Amino acid sequence: MSEIFKITGIYTDLYQLTMGQVYYQDRRRDWTGYDYFFRKLPFGGGYVVFAGLIDVLEALADLQFTSDDLDFLRSQGFKSEFLNYLKDFRFRGTVYSVPEGDIVFPTRPVLRVEGNIIEAQIVETLVLNMLNFQSLIATKAARMRWVAGNRVLTDFGLRRAQGLGGYHASRAAMVGGFDSTSNVKAAADFHVPAAGTMAHAFIQSFDDELTAFRHFAEGMPVGCVLLVDTYNTIESGLPNAIRVAKEMEASGHKLNGIRLDSGDLAYLSKRSRYMLDEAGLRYVKIAASNQLDEYVIKSLLDQQAPIDIFGVGTSLVTGQPDAALDGVYKLCLADNKPRIKISETLKKTTLPDRKQVFRVLDQNGMFYGADAIALNDEKRVDHMFDPFEPYKSLSLRGLKQEPLLDKVMGNGQILLEQKPLKEIAGYCHERLAKLPDEYKRFQNPHNYKVGVSKTLMDLRDELKNKFEGELI
Amino acid sequence: MSEIFKITGIYTDLYQLTMGQVYYQDRRRDWTGYDYFFRKLPFGGGYVVFAGLIDVLEALADLQFTSDDLDFLRSQGFKSEFLNYLKDFRFRGTVYSVPEGDIVFPTRPVLRVEGNIIEAQIVETLVLNMLNFQSLIATKAARMRWVAGNRVLTDFGLRRAQGLGGYHASRAAMVGGFDSTSNVKAAADFHVPAAGTMAHAFIQSFDDELTAFRHFAEGMPVGCVLLVDTYNTIESGLPNAIRVAKEMEASGHKLNGIRLDSGDLAYLSKRSRYMLDEAGLRYVKIAASNQLDEYVIKSLLDQQAPIDIFGVGTSLVTGQPDAALDGVYKLCLADNKPRIKISETLKKTTLPDRKQVFRVLDQNGMFYGADAIALNDEKRVDHMFDPFEPYKSLSLRGLKQEPLLDKVMGNGQILLEQKPLKEIAGYCHERLAKLPDEYKRFQNPHNYKVGVSKTLMDLRDELKNKFEGELI
Repeated sequence: MSEIFKITGIYTDLYQLTMGQVYYQDRRRDWTGYDYFFRKLPFGGGYVVFAGLIDVLEALADLQFTSDDLDFLRSQGFKSEFLNYLKDFRFRGTVYSVPEGDIVFPTRPVLRVEGNIIEAQIVETLVLNMLNFQSLIATKAARMRWVAGNRVLTDFGLRRAQGLGGYHASRAAMVGGFDSTSNVKAAADFHVPAAGTMAHAFIQSFDDELTAFRHFAEGMPVGCVLLVDTYNTIESGLPNAIRVAKEMEASGHKLNGIRLDSGDLAYLSKRSRYMLDEAGLRYVKIAASNQLDEYVIKSLLDQQAPIDIFGVGTSLVTGQPDAALDGVYKLCLADNKPRIKISETLKKTTLPDRKQVFRVLDQNGMFYGADAIALNDEKRVDHMFDPFEPYKSLSLRGLKQEPLLDKVMGNGQILLEQKPLKEIAGYCHERLAKLPDEYKRFQNPHNYKVGVSKTLMDLRDELKNKFEGELI
Repeated sequence: MSEIFKITGIYTDLYQLTMGQVYYQDRRRDWTGYDYFFRKLPFGGGYVVFAGLIDVLEALADLQFTSDDLDFLRSQGFKSEFLNYLKDFRFRGTVYSVPEGDIVFPTRPVLRVEGNIIEAQIVETLVLNMLNFQSLIATKAARMRWVAGNRVLTDFGLRRAQGLGGYHASRAAMVGGFDSTSNVKAAADFHVPAAGTMAHAFIQSFDDELTAFRHFAEGMPVGCVLLVDTYNTIESGLPNAIRVAKEMEASGHKLNGIRLDSGDLAYLSKRSRYMLDEAGLRYVKIAASNQLDEYVIKSLLDQQAPIDIFGVGTSLVTGQPDAALDGVYKLCLADNKPRIKISETLKKTTLPDRKQVFRVLDQNGMFYGADAIALNDEKRVDHMFDPFEPYKSLSLRGLKQEPLLDKVMGNGQILLEQKPLKEIAGYCHERLAKLPDEYKRFQNPHNYKVGVSKTLMDLRDELKNKFEGELI
C-alpha cells in the first residue's frame, strides 16, 4: 500500500500525551492492557463486521514522533526529558485480535492492546479512530450485500465522504461485500476493481445526447455504460442508447449497460428492460444510482426491479444515519493486575483481566447465537451468564466453541500474515453465511447473546465490591 | 500547513478520467464552468457555514499524477497518449468563490470552477469531497456556538471521527466557532489551541483516586482538570478534587477545573458548583462531556447548569445525524456558452452561465434574508424571482447589496491571501452576527429567500425550452 497519510505520534488526543508525561515523570513503565469493544449495534442491526485491523497494525508498527511533532509539543509546554523519550519512541506492545472480517457483537472484546503504560495510552486514539470507522462502513456494506444477493454493488461515495475518510471507507466497503469502487486512489492502493460510468456533464457538453453517446462508445468500446436520464429517460435516453448499442454491434462491440440516476427506479428499470429486450439487447445491463441505501435496494428488488448493478454513495461511505460506531478502549490490566472501571450501572462496568472470546457453533457449524467471554486461561465455557443480569444464564455444554482472539502483534512487530483484501472479504462472506438470517434482518433483529464465564463474573464482582467498599 | 495527505490526480472517481480520455481523444479543450452548490440545508437548520476553501485551492494548485498513479491507470487500460497528457497535467483553471466562513444557502452558487473540459471534469470529486464535508462540520459547530454563548467549546472527536476525516473535521469545527481541539495533529497543522483533561484509565492505573489526582496535579500544575466520575462523583471524585485543589493552593497553584463525563450533567454540575463554592473554590471551572450535541447543550443551559466548558465529540466531527452535505458540481458553461441540465422538476433544473450572488442587507447592515443570483455582468438585482415558483417575486429596490463571489484562483495559481484560521473563524462569527436569530433557531427556522434576476430566469427558460423542444 502506498502511503498517502503519514500517521505519526501526534495523531492522538492531547490528554494521552499529558498523561504519558505524568507516567514518565513518575518513572512508571508498568504493563497495562486495554480492551477494544463497543456497546451499541449500529443501524438498529444485529451484528458488526470488524474491519481496519491491518491499518491499525501498520500504523502502530510505524509510529514515530517527527521532529515537527516534537517542536509542536515543546511549544505546548511538554518537558524536554519526556520529549527525549518520545524522540526514540516506538510502539513495542502486543495486540490480540479477532480476524478482520469476522462478525462481532457488543460488550465482548474485539481486540486487546498490551504495552507499557505510556505506549498503550498514547495509541488509544488511533486504534479507536480507525477501527470504529472501518467497522461501521463494513457493517453498512454487509447489510446492502445481504439484500442485493448476487447483484453488483459498487461504491460511488467519494464526493460525499467525510473528507479524507473516504479513503478507508472504500476499503471497508470491500470488506463488507462490495464489488468495486469509483475511488481510484483506494482502488490503486487496496487492489480492488475500479468502476464507473459517465456523468450528465459529459452529455451536456455536446450539442445533443446521441452525439455524446456515440463519442463515448467510440472512446470506450469495452465496458461502456450510457447514462440515459439527462433529458428524458424513456423518450430520449433509452432510444438513443439502443441506437448506439446497435451501431456498436455493427462494429463488433457490445454495450455493457445503461444507468438510471433519477426518477422512479422501479418503474424506469422495468420500462428500460422491456425496451432493451424488445430491441434484442438482453445482454445490456441496467445500473441504478441516486440516494440508495439498504432499504431502497430491498424495496426495489421486492418490486422485481430488473436492476443488475447498484451504485451506492453517501449512505455507504458515511454510514448514515449513525455515522459512528461507539467503540471504546478500556483498561483491563494495570501493573499486570486485573482492573475494572465501575459505574453506577452494571452496563458500564468493564470486564477485568486478559480475556478470550469463544464463538459457539451448532451441530451444523452455523453460529449458535452466543459468544462467551472467559478469562484467558479457560479452554471453553460450559455455562455462560448474562454479564448485566446474572440470574440469566445459558448452558453451552457439548457445543463446539472456537476461540476468536489471536496474537497479531508482538513487541511492536506485525505477526499477522498480510492478506489481499479480497481474501478478507471472502472470510467476511463465509462468516456471515454462518450467521442465521434472524440476526441479519433489519426490523428488530434477533438478539445475539453475549455471556461471561463464572470465573470471569466472580472476578468482576470481587473487584467491584472492593472498589465500592472503599468509598464507604 | 505540513502535508499529511498527498492528494494526487487519482483522488477522483474513475469516470472523471474515463470521460477525460474521451475528451482528450476528441481533441477537446474547450472552456467549461461548473457551479458548486447544495440543495438541502443540513440538520433541519436555516443556513450553512462555508468551509474548506483553502484546502481545495491548495490541492488544485499542487495537483499532479505521480508515476505510481500513471502505472495504475495504465493497468486499467488507459491509453498512452492520454497518460502522457496526464504526466504533465497541472490544473490551470480559474476559481471564483464566496469567502470561507461566510453563510450560504441552497440553490445559489457558492463556488465556480472554470477550466478546460478535461481539468474541470477531473477535479470535481476532490472539490465536492472537501467542501461538502468541511461545510457540514463548520455548520454543526456554529449551531453549538449559537447555544453555548461565551462558554468554551472544545472538540474531543478524533476517536469517533470517520477515520482520516477527523483531521479536517477539527479544522472545520474551528471555522464554525469552536475554541480548541484535543486533536494534536490538527492543532499543530492548523495552529489552533490544543486542549485536554485526563482519562478514567489514568485514575484506574493508581491504587486509589486521591493518589491519582495528586500525581496528575503534581505533573501538570498549570491547566490541571481532574476527572471526577471514575468511582462516584459526589462521594469520591468531588471531595478528592477539593482536597487536591487545597493542596495545590498551598503550593501556590490553582486547580483549573473538574470534568463530569457521565450521569445527569445538569444535576451533577449544580451539586459540584455548590460543593466547590462552599470549599472556597469559586475559580475552579466545570467541564462536561458525554454524548453532547447542540440540543443537549441547550437543554443543560436552559436548566441553568453551571457548566463552563463543553467537550463535544461524535456528533460534531461526524455531523450527526445527516453525516453529509448534498453539494453538487453542475455544468453551467460549455465551450464558453451557457448550459443547463434540465429535469422533470424545475427544482433540479440548473442555472446557466457565469453568475454572481448578491447578499441583500437591511438599513442596519443586518442580512435582509435574501440572496439574489444574477448573471455575471449584472451590478445588482432590484427584483428577484423564486427560481422554482416564478410567480413569487420580491422587490429589493433601495436595499444595499454585496456581491459575494470573488476570483480566488487564476491559471491554477492561488490569488487568495492566506489567512490564519482564527481570522476565518472571526469572519464567520461576524457574518453569523448579521443573520437574525429566526434563521438560527433549531425548530422550523425561517426560510432565507434565494431568488434569480429576470435576465437569468429568462436565459434559463430559453435554454430549457430549446432542449425540451428538441425532444419532441
